[in-house]
Formats: sequence, C-alpha cells, structure tokens
Amino acid sequence: MKSSTPFRSLAIVGLGGIGASIGLGLKRRGLPLRIGGYDLLPQVSELAQAQGVVDFIYPSLAACADAELIVLATPPHALPQCFQELAPHLKPGTVLTDVASVKTPVLAWAQAILPHLQRFVGGHPIAGTERSGLQAARADLFEGAQWVLTPVASTDNAALQRVQWLVQSLGAVPVVMEAEQHDKEFALLSFLPHCVAFSLQSLHRQHPTLLQGSSSWRDATRVAESDPALWAELLLLNRQFTAEHLTALIAHLNRLAQLLEKGDEKSLRAFLKPK
Amino acid sequence: MKSSTPFRSLAIVGLGGIGASIGLGLKRRGLPLRIGGYDLLPQVSELAQAQGVVDFIYPSLAACADAELIVLATPPHALPQCFQELAPHLKPGTVLTDVASVKTPVLAWAQAILPHLQRFVGGHPIAGTERSGLQAARADLFEGAQWVLTPVASTDNAALQRVQWLVQSLGAVPVVMEAEQHDKEFALLSFLPHCVAFSLQSLHRQHPTLLQGSSSWRDATRVAESDPALWAELLLLNRQFTAEHLTALIAHLNRLAQLLEKGDEKSLRAFLKPK
Repeated sequence: MKSSTPFRSLAIVGLGGIGASIGLGLKRRGLPLRIGGYDLLPQVSELAQAQGVVDFIYPSLAACADAELIVLATPPHALPQCFQELAPHLKPGTVLTDVASVKTPVLAWAQAILPHLQRFVGGHPIAGTERSGLQAARADLFEGAQWVLTPVASTDNAALQRVQWLVQSLGAVPVVMEAEQHDKEFALLSFLPHCVAFSLQSLHRQHPTLLQGSSSWRDATRVAESDPALWAELLLLNRQFTAEHLTALIAHLNRLAQLLEKGDEKSLRAFLKPK
Repeated sequence: MKSSTPFRSLAIVGLGGIGASIGLGLKRRGLPLRIGGYDLLPQVSELAQAQGVVDFIYPSLAACADAELIVLATPPHALPQCFQELAPHLKPGTVLTDVASVKTPVLAWAQAILPHLQRFVGGHPIAGTERSGLQAARADLFEGAQWVLTPVASTDNAALQRVQWLVQSLGAVPVVMEAEQHDKEFALLSFLPHCVAFSLQSLHRQHPTLLQGSSSWRDATRVAESDPALWAELLLLNRQFTAEHLTALIAHLNRLAQLLEKGDEKSLRAFLKPK
C-alpha cells in the first residue's frame, strides 16, 4: 500500500455512481488524501459522507476550488456551469478533470470558459452499469477498466500526470487519445448497443410475449434500464458519430433481411461469420 | 429425492450442449432410469459415456427406438432423417420429443414422416449459451428455465405427461403453447438479438477500435460467438417472423436516427422510455 501521494486534497463534484465510486476506491487504499465532496442535492452529500465516500462536504461548488485536483462527476449538461462557477476561484496549480462519456463537447466548453485550460484534462472511465446514483457506487468499479484521457497540445504535463496518478490509484488503465477518436469509438462500442437496447425494449412493449426473454434477450436489453434523460442528452452530444454508426447498423440489418428473404443459406452463413 | 419414474429407459440422440446437459441433469438426480445416448460422431459418444453423461451408447440411431422416451437433441436439419430412421422401429408406446428452437417446421416434418404422430411432442428448452458441444454441458442448465412444449390436437395425453415429467425432473418449467406462437415470440426474444449481435460484430470488424468494449458492448455481442452454421439454419427456418421483427427493429432505429438528426431532446427522451 502506497503511503505518499503527489498531492493532498481532492474534490469530487457530483456524488452519483461514478463520483462516489472514485471516493470509495481511493479511501479503500488508505492514502493520505483529504477527499471532499459536493453534490447539488444536500441529502446526497450527507449520505455520501455518512457512508464514508468522502471525508467532508464542501459548503459550495466554488469552495471546491481549494482542492489540488477537482473531479467533475456530474451529468455532462452541468459541466459548463461547473466551469463557470469554479473559474473565478481556481488557483494556478489546481487541476480539473471530468468523467463524461462524450469528450469533444466537454473540451469545447472548457476551452470557452476556463482561464487555465492547460490544467484541464478530459477523462472518461469506461465503467459503470445501467444503475445510477450513490447506491450504485462500488469501491472496485474501476479495477482493470480503461480510463480515457484526452489532453490537448497545450495541456500541462504535470496536470496530465496528476490525473494519471488518480486513474492508476483506482486500479484503472489510462488510455490517452484524441477526444474525437474517443467519441467515434465510444459511439460504436456503447451508444449503438444502447440505441439497440432501447429499441428492442420498445418493440417488446408493442409485442408482449408469454415467454420470458432468453439470456440473449436479457443481455441485449439490460442497458435499456439506464436513465433515459441522461441518454437522450448523451446521444445528442455525440449525435453525428452515433447517427453514422446507426446508419451503418441499419444497412447491415437490411442486408440480413434481404438474405433471409432470398433464403440464401451460404451467403447468410458468410454474413454471420466472415472468414 | 424421488426414487420412482413413470418409465425406465430414455435415449438421447445428439450429445452436444443440450443433449449432454439433459443426461447430466437426470443422472445427478439418481433416478432409476437407464439413459442411453447416440451421437453421429463416435468420439463424442465415447467421451459422453466416459464423462458419465449417459449410462451406455446405442449401436445405431435405429436402436434408440427401444427406449420409452427418445429425446432428439440434434441440430434441426438432422431431424427429418432421425424421424425417417426411427419410424420403422418405433413401438406403439414410444414417445418422441425434440429440443429445436424452431417449432413449426419440426412439427411439419413429424407430421409428414412419423406413423405415430400422437406420440410426438415438440419441445424447446429456453436455455443454453453461445457455447456448444459436449464441453458446454451443465447438469443445472435447465434449472428454473422455461421449456416450451407444443402438443397438437391429436397428441396423446400420456405422451405429453411423459415429456412434462422429463422437463420437471430437470428443474425446468413446462410451458404449453402453439408452435407458431412460440416461433413468433422466440424470433423476437432470441433471433433478433442474435441478428443484432452478428451485425454489431460485423460493423466492428469494419471499424476496429483502440478501446475495448464497454459492458454494454460485450453483452450485446456475446451471442455473435454462436455457431454461424447453426444460426444460418435457424434464421432460415424461422425466416418469416424473424424478417418481420427485423423490419420493425429497423423502423425503430430509423426513427431514432431521425430524432438525433432533428436534435429533438424531448421526443428522444420519450422514445427511449415511453410513459
């Protein structure tokens, strides 16, 4: 167990599933780090402190600017306001990161609002489930997970290192990549399965069945239990790449429907598993 | 533990994942039942006997007609030939069932070939994974699973009861329904997620990513590891219902793409989770 840290104070803004898991994960390691939290809902803050997710609660969002590393773990739409409220109070050495699953828009907001952009490092832990909120928090949520970081040319190297230290302390693997590439890949790897899950669930509501779903059904629709408000927001923030992948998927499914209509078993087999 | 059985001998034809799981599940219960097996591949038969999946191996398919209950656990395309080879040897009391995940074509084959149709009960255990073959067998595979049975008007009630006893002995829940309704529901609940999984995997081959899949990706594509030859066969055997559901899914995805294009967050949210 490491007993030294490259900094002493951390603020977690937003104590939902991701934010609270960061707190729990760090606290479990027993690092000499003062971890403060802030949530828009006072009852969430209180509960998080009572559950040992954070050491203390900051009295306001602006007060979080005291920390050496601020992790913004709010829904994406709250980020511009967080940047605005924090900006006047940031010290030159403070580092900021976020955890949103879209990176290009977050970077644009940071560029427009933050006076010390070189101290902002966009981040996205590829972890989490269809469950949300404090009750979904787990100390081991990030163990072995990829955690994307999207520094830009002007990013301070010390800022990047501080965020990488955080990621590794949580057992995750930092993956540095361009924000746009992240958004394109993640639209395929996550947004598309979410689109399918929501659509299958919607189809099922129109065609109720006596049979329960098979395991393939349960797996394909699990994430349709995700928060629709959050997902409407995310899909729109990454609408171009998501729409491109959706169009490609629709073309694949149309091709499959054609092969079924033709009854062409050989082509169908080749479509299902190309050599 | 029950110690009596309504019959004494059972033949399992086809010792893949489903057939072998039936053998293991029954043997674990220690019932006084002679369980014989037969597989087209002698090495599979030998291995199954060595692993205690069956008590003995029948020397031929025709010899399986000696059993009081014959479970045909072959891929669907082998069923017509099984019916043909067994038909001349069936005794008046022998009951037959199958485990195929399409039921209407199996019933048509049975009607065309079997002299004692009243002793045939179509069946489909809704269990199994993307893995196949003897090594995928599990004694508890059917615990708690639905197991569809599709008797017709002429089905002998004693035959249905014998198959229901088998299903319950394996810890599964018999669900009696029309073959056509089964095929329609299962096209939605399983064939459609398989179509999506194969298509997503195919899309990913065209757009390789640096990022690993999120859990939503892994879940949505797990069944793309299924045997493509078996699935080409199944999809074609249930092509009408599968194509209908595919068309409906494509319409949903197109609607989603339109909402993204319009940037209409309120409608998008309502689409994702209708009240």
